[in-house]
Amino acid sequence: MPDESLFDAATAVRDRGLLGGPPDVRAFDVDIDKGWTIGPDKPNGGYLLAILGRAAVDAVASAGGTQPHVVAANVTYVAATSLGPATVEVEVLRIGRGASQARARLVSAGSVTVEAMFTLGSLGRGSDPWWGGAPPVDVVPEDDAAQPPRGIELPPFAEKMALRLDPSSTGFARGTPGGRGELKGWLRFADGRDFDALSLLLVVDSCPPATFDLIATGWVPTLNLTAYIRAEPAPGPLRIRFRVGMVQSGFADEFFEVWDSEDRLVATSTQVVALRIPEGTPPAPG
Amino acid sequence: MPDESLFDAATAVRDRGLLGGPPDVRAFDVDIDKGWTIGPDKPNGGYLLAILGRAAVDAVASAGGTQPHVVAANVTYVAATSLGPATVEVEVLRIGRGASQARARLVSAGSVTVEAMFTLGSLGRGSDPWWGGAPPVDVVPEDDAAQPPRGIELPPFAEKMALRLDPSSTGFARGTPGGRGELKGWLRFADGRDFDALSLLLVVDSCPPATFDLIATGWVPTLNLTAYIRAEPAPGPLRIRFRVGMVQSGFADEFFEVWDSEDRLVATSTQVVALRIPEGTPPAPG
Repeated sequence: MPDESLFDAATAVRDRGLLGGPPDVRAFDVDIDKGWTIGPDKPNGGYLLAILGRAAVDAVASAGGTQPHVVAANVTYVAATSLGPATVEVEVLRIGRGASQARARLVSAGSVTVEAMFTLGSLGRGSDPWWGGAPPVDVVPEDDAAQPPRGIELPPFAEKMALRLDPSSTGFARGTPGGRGELKGWLRFADGRDFDALSLLLVVDSCPPATFDLIATGWVPTLNLTAYIRAEPAPGPLRIRFRVGMVQSGFADEFFEVWDSEDRLVATSTQVVALRIPEGTPPAPG
Repeated sequence: MPDESLFDAATAVRDRGLLGGPPDVRAFDVDIDKGWTIGPDKPNGGYLLAILGRAAVDAVASAGGTQPHVVAANVTYVAATSLGPATVEVEVLRIGRGASQARARLVSAGSVTVEAMFTLGSLGRGSDPWWGGAPPVDVVPEDDAAQPPRGIELPPFAEKMALRLDPSSTGFARGTPGGRGELKGWLRFADGRDFDALSLLLVVDSCPPATFDLIATGWVPTLNLTAYIRAEPAPGPLRIRFRVGMVQSGFADEFFEVWDSEDRLVATSTQVVALRIPEGTPPAPG
């Protein structure tokens, strides 16, 4: 593992101090790295959320908050974010005993491109739930899961995140979606960095659209995503499952689950995407 | 049904125009009504979310947006909201062809008490999903479901929302929680108003905490809630189910589902609440 992981370098935030208010807003300089794009010059949404989360954690600490972890995050993707220098503005909304809260926005080329809210708490590593949870998804052993096809140029994001899909989830890549509205597999950072709570904000948006298992479309833009981080993950690979809830009225929702190497459900997310289905189109047979 | 329902009157917003920017913020005068409280002077969170949603819909229309319905809402509860006059500030973030987006905050007695984000779209009434959904929860007939106990003074909110719980869900009221982490039942507006898409923002936060079916505690404050509205509900009563996901590290998450009288899943929500369990406490046997 390198001294500083690629993820940590690419999500670094530099505190510029309070801008003056009201409201009190703290600004951070950030650099949107071309190494985390999913298409030409298009940064992955989870990557942007992780940058905002890091700034929110810093701003809450600067305001006297004691909670080091994002527990809940909501993010609205407003417009395309440009690569290169940008600013994160954080307004701390509450410093509390058990939880603190902040909102954050990414300002890129003079416009708001991402808006988010964070609730911070203190998570345990290896802590088990008092109640509830979900058993880990059944996935073939990591070595038997699909490697990215050789000879195809991968987007930079796919080179950073080693995602290996279960064979049951790879039909979409061959033009034969599975029809179950589900993708599942294994995930690691390609550079060997272990996952921590903050990086789970990236993980919950690290998979191709689950709707690809129902219908072949162009890219499916996320409008709004909510992530819950439940525990610091144990070292090692993660198992993930990404499922479609409903497709209706030009929108779809998708549900993401993440288990650590000790079988704990460590994060979930739910998102709404824009997905217009031409009238009369049948879903893939499931 | 009265000419103006109690819900519509209590969630009215009066546009005061743009405050000047940047950013462009539109202000609305609102009145936080004592008729929708769940404790002494404590307005229900879904009631506040519905007010913010109504202002966001108005502000998006004023900015040229064509989408009349909230499709996704995220809300962070920051501090207690006082009864009486307050201001909603809305910043429109995007006017789009299929979706528009705004953030809104409630300013009460000079402080931000609620912060929210909305994605708007155009929903169909009686539209069926292209894919997915969930069959309605099994509940006893509405007439057989529990009436609120006689002779007990109900909070004003409970008088407005006729919630009738399934007998399997009422153990907590007798000191014997069911242990399944689930409450379910029927819901109507007591004044006979039918539900529409906007009022579903209230519905998804209209139930006692689902954690009451696991453990008797004081009130369980919602920190952050996400609602997805999927269709305009058909007239008539709604069926609801409220379930606990996990309880861990001082937080719990709860999942709400709403079906209309034609068996359609019309709304869902997920929320994070503060819930600290004393060490060594067992959950109720399920």
